[in-house]
Amino acid sequence: MSAAPNPLLVVGSVAIDSIRTPFGERERSLGGAALHFSVSASFFTEVGVVAVIGDDFTAEDRRVFDERRIDTENLRHVPGGRTFRWAGEYGYDLNTARTLDTQLNVFADFDPHLSERARQSPFLFLANIQPGLQRRVREQVNARFVAMDTMNFWIEGAREELLQTLSVVDALLINDAEARELAGEANMIRAARKILTMGPSLVVVKRGEYGAACFTRESYFATPAFPLENVFDPTGAGDSFAGGFMGCLAQAGSIDDHTVRRAVIYGSVMASYNVEEFSCDRLRRLLPEEIGSRFRQFKEFTHFEI
Amino acid sequence: MSAAPNPLLVVGSVAIDSIRTPFGERERSLGGAALHFSVSASFFTEVGVVAVIGDDFTAEDRRVFDERRIDTENLRHVPGGRTFRWAGEYGYDLNTARTLDTQLNVFADFDPHLSERARQSPFLFLANIQPGLQRRVREQVNARFVAMDTMNFWIEGAREELLQTLSVVDALLINDAEARELAGEANMIRAARKILTMGPSLVVVKRGEYGAACFTRESYFATPAFPLENVFDPTGAGDSFAGGFMGCLAQAGSIDDHTVRRAVIYGSVMASYNVEEFSCDRLRRLLPEEIGSRFRQFKEFTHFEI
Repeated sequence: MSAAPNPLLVVGSVAIDSIRTPFGERERSLGGAALHFSVSASFFTEVGVVAVIGDDFTAEDRRVFDERRIDTENLRHVPGGRTFRWAGEYGYDLNTARTLDTQLNVFADFDPHLSERARQSPFLFLANIQPGLQRRVREQVNARFVAMDTMNFWIEGAREELLQTLSVVDALLINDAEARELAGEANMIRAARKILTMGPSLVVVKRGEYGAACFTRESYFATPAFPLENVFDPTGAGDSFAGGFMGCLAQAGSIDDHTVRRAVIYGSVMASYNVEEFSCDRLRRLLPEEIGSRFRQFKEFTHFEI
Repeated sequence: MSAAPNPLLVVGSVAIDSIRTPFGERERSLGGAALHFSVSASFFTEVGVVAVIGDDFTAEDRRVFDERRIDTENLRHVPGGRTFRWAGEYGYDLNTARTLDTQLNVFADFDPHLSERARQSPFLFLANIQPGLQRRVREQVNARFVAMDTMNFWIEGAREELLQTLSVVDALLINDAEARELAGEANMIRAARKILTMGPSLVVVKRGEYGAACFTRESYFATPAFPLENVFDPTGAGDSFAGGFMGCLAQAGSIDDHTVRRAVIYGSVMASYNVEEFSCDRLRRLLPEEIGSRFRQFKEFTHFEI
């Protein structure tokens, strides 16, 4: 393993999910935001993962990181502990998961102290975890660009901490409905503009099957989603989007408008593959040329002449 | 008035609406699908309107057609009759109207016999009316390209007639949720593909604040919506979209892929202006250069480099 810091670091959950969709179910589905993120980002750059696992995360499970050369120096194993578990199901509309069970397990006491190397990563993603924890990780990393995700649970239950964390990041990647809830604005454009006054200079709104939109104080970019006839399991779509987005930025080493727009498309491409199968099964056998192919299709199906 | 047929003809409702939104209310708001459509289309081409009005549609009201040079040769006035009335209200999300009252009035017996001139219009739009009536109008017009709209009311209550009408049109313009309902498919892409087996060779799905998508058997095009901070009254958004779409096609006299894509953008531009004020107030004072300006903004905010 290289002694140089990874261009990209992610902190978040690694989970063993139990998932039911109208098309099938899986009892033991590797998941968690940091896992989906890092697998996706690994197609673009070297990524280090900050997370925690228990004894039930097997050597076979670890291959998901190793085969993608994801740096697990800061993946802590708690002997005698059990990995974070989430059980959920989707109806036919596939837009919202119903949580059936959550067991924090080793995640309950997760409060990472990062390696010296990890602290030098220039791009950092704070996946959806408790906002105070996000901030403590953010403070450890001497990053050039920091993005975060969050969810309704924290918007409703830890708003003050969330606002503090928001004030020390560069970008927020967030769902449509959660952006509206955070801002207290029904209109999406006003909601995003309001969030831009809370700290981030970049807001990326994930709209599921409707695509994504990206706001700065000066610019706006939006794209429809890739037209998928078969969405099998939406779990991890947002995290694989974030992985493609941050992976693209970290690979380019730039956050100019041109690169951010491409990053939104790469995020959309990775999310579109991720939802085609359970867990990150599809990404694990994805070929780099398949990413390029779908990227060019985005160009084709959004193009029109002036 | 020219003796040549209008390039574009629309059949549908002209209404006097009563509308309540979170931002205000209006007791007497000119509306109806054919009115919104024709005002929008009039920026692109000469359009004739096939509809019916009562005594309460005043000379002042008629100015909405005259000032836009909309051909009212087939706008029938029923002496002693009352114009179609619709009352509805919107909540803060503005996505769905709650109908408070509907009075068909002169519309109840509407069964138009078109003038010889109208029968020669090459582009025809069958706005959302009873599907049997749409078909009877369609059969009178020797059009080169026929598009239609519909709604859940007919999908649920007049399905067989609707399927018959669908089988004799070239294009369906339809809302997201209604496309899913018509096809019996939760997945939008599969829903559109299924509708393409029912007759139309072109399906345009209107997604409100999320934009629009356009399907043929060979191609796919999608665009986000114009980012509006202030949506005042969504009434007529879909009809003004259709007016811009069909107006663009009729003006070009072409339905090639290149023109259809531009038509989807022009439809989106017209809808974005229409929702900024009650009725078609905003369109009535719209300048042609404002259309061009927003069209170019669509290009700018959807553009990315390969």
